[in-house]
Amino acid sequence: MPRYKLTIEYDGTPFNGWQSQADGGAVQDALSRAVEGFCGEQVTVFGAGRTDSGVHALGQVAHIDIAKEAAPDTVRDALNYHLRGVPVAVLSAEEVSTEFDARFSAMRRHYFYRIVNRRAPLTVDKKKAWLVHVPLDAEAMHAAGQVLTGKHDFTTFRSAHCQSRSPVKTLDEVTVSRYGEDIEIICRARSFLHNQVRSIVGSLKLVGEGKWTKADLARALEAADRSACGPVAPPDGLYLFQVDYG
Amino acid sequence: MPRYKLTIEYDGTPFNGWQSQADGGAVQDALSRAVEGFCGEQVTVFGAGRTDSGVHALGQVAHIDIAKEAAPDTVRDALNYHLRGVPVAVLSAEEVSTEFDARFSAMRRHYFYRIVNRRAPLTVDKKKAWLVHVPLDAEAMHAAGQVLTGKHDFTTFRSAHCQSRSPVKTLDEVTVSRYGEDIEIICRARSFLHNQVRSIVGSLKLVGEGKWTKADLARALEAADRSACGPVAPPDGLYLFQVDYG
Repeated sequence: MPRYKLTIEYDGTPFNGWQSQADGGAVQDALSRAVEGFCGEQVTVFGAGRTDSGVHALGQVAHIDIAKEAAPDTVRDALNYHLRGVPVAVLSAEEVSTEFDARFSAMRRHYFYRIVNRRAPLTVDKKKAWLVHVPLDAEAMHAAGQVLTGKHDFTTFRSAHCQSRSPVKTLDEVTVSRYGEDIEIICRARSFLHNQVRSIVGSLKLVGEGKWTKADLARALEAADRSACGPVAPPDGLYLFQVDYG
Repeated sequence: MPRYKLTIEYDGTPFNGWQSQADGGAVQDALSRAVEGFCGEQVTVFGAGRTDSGVHALGQVAHIDIAKEAAPDTVRDALNYHLRGVPVAVLSAEEVSTEFDARFSAMRRHYFYRIVNRRAPLTVDKKKAWLVHVPLDAEAMHAAGQVLTGKHDFTTFRSAHCQSRSPVKTLDEVTVSRYGEDIEIICRARSFLHNQVRSIVGSLKLVGEGKWTKADLARALEAADRSACGPVAPPDGLYLFQVDYG
């Protein structure tokens, strides 16, 4: 039974996140229905990252096992046909060995978070970025963010609902860059805790507006206490854009 | 009576273009209602460019004359308050002399057109770009586009509904660049004919897919015949992003 690796893009706005829901309103559900429409098989679509409700993906990765044999490009086009009307697209499909697992084989996950830093409301980017009115110092955010890289107990930056066995993770990179009124925050790690990027962005925003210093951020991390976290940033600005495999 | 220059952003998707419509469904109508909501005055909002239905703006410029005296930032914030729920935002407001006219004082208008060149459907960029499945040669498009710069009779690239007295315009720049699967086409001129940019993009797309050569594009221009134009590109990818004044 062939296994296909799918690279997937979606607008998270209308979905209840990645993970299958009883009401069928998750990205995973939309993909399962498309697979069934294509080959009549009911299969689980295993994803690399369980994005939350409202979070977007430009490069989510998933795998499926189906009995039907088809050229990978046919699988891609057929799934997109069955996804019509739904803001989910299969960017590519490739046949992989059954040793490949979208979740467990992932070596690195890459997220970016987009803030639009201005007074005026969002129009073309509504639900695609976090609008922050107060001027932010992106350089201060970047400098402070460096205290988070490396191996740490990230309890402070972890949702109370996180199911990960350990709060200890290694964050490879936090980069904050300003492009005009846009601020982009890139986070890379082998894996993330639930709400980790949005918790980090919410705390970096406090640094950007001068409410927190770099030392305050370091103390919040060291506290290993969820209540030390800044307000969690909204899902609108978060994008899972790449997953690397060995 | 003070005159205010407004710089405006909008998602053109839900609007019947810029210009006021009997059903009130134009961007100009939304702005007129916001001005009336702010100061109780019924005024015309004069715009620099009459964007078509579905065309977006990141830097449309308009002017209004209102009796109410207010700090420009108050005008901006009040109009945005009255625009809530509508994808139109006033980025800035400034008081200008009554000699300033958003349309007639404009020295240069800047548009860009965004093509996404890939097989998979659009998700996060739905209605924000033109999806072209067939691979396009952006370098060939750029090279060909140079035959259009300068002063020409643009009858070929002009809508039958164009109200401009003359089809002769000077196109200052056509630049086609590829960034991964994105192709961006920038056009700059003092003023444009109706549908000129979309007509140019539609013809450049034929060059990109190898159906037209640079010489074919030159012949289409020289024909000064609307029927020589390629299929007009859809509005989704077009953005009025800047208007310059003296």
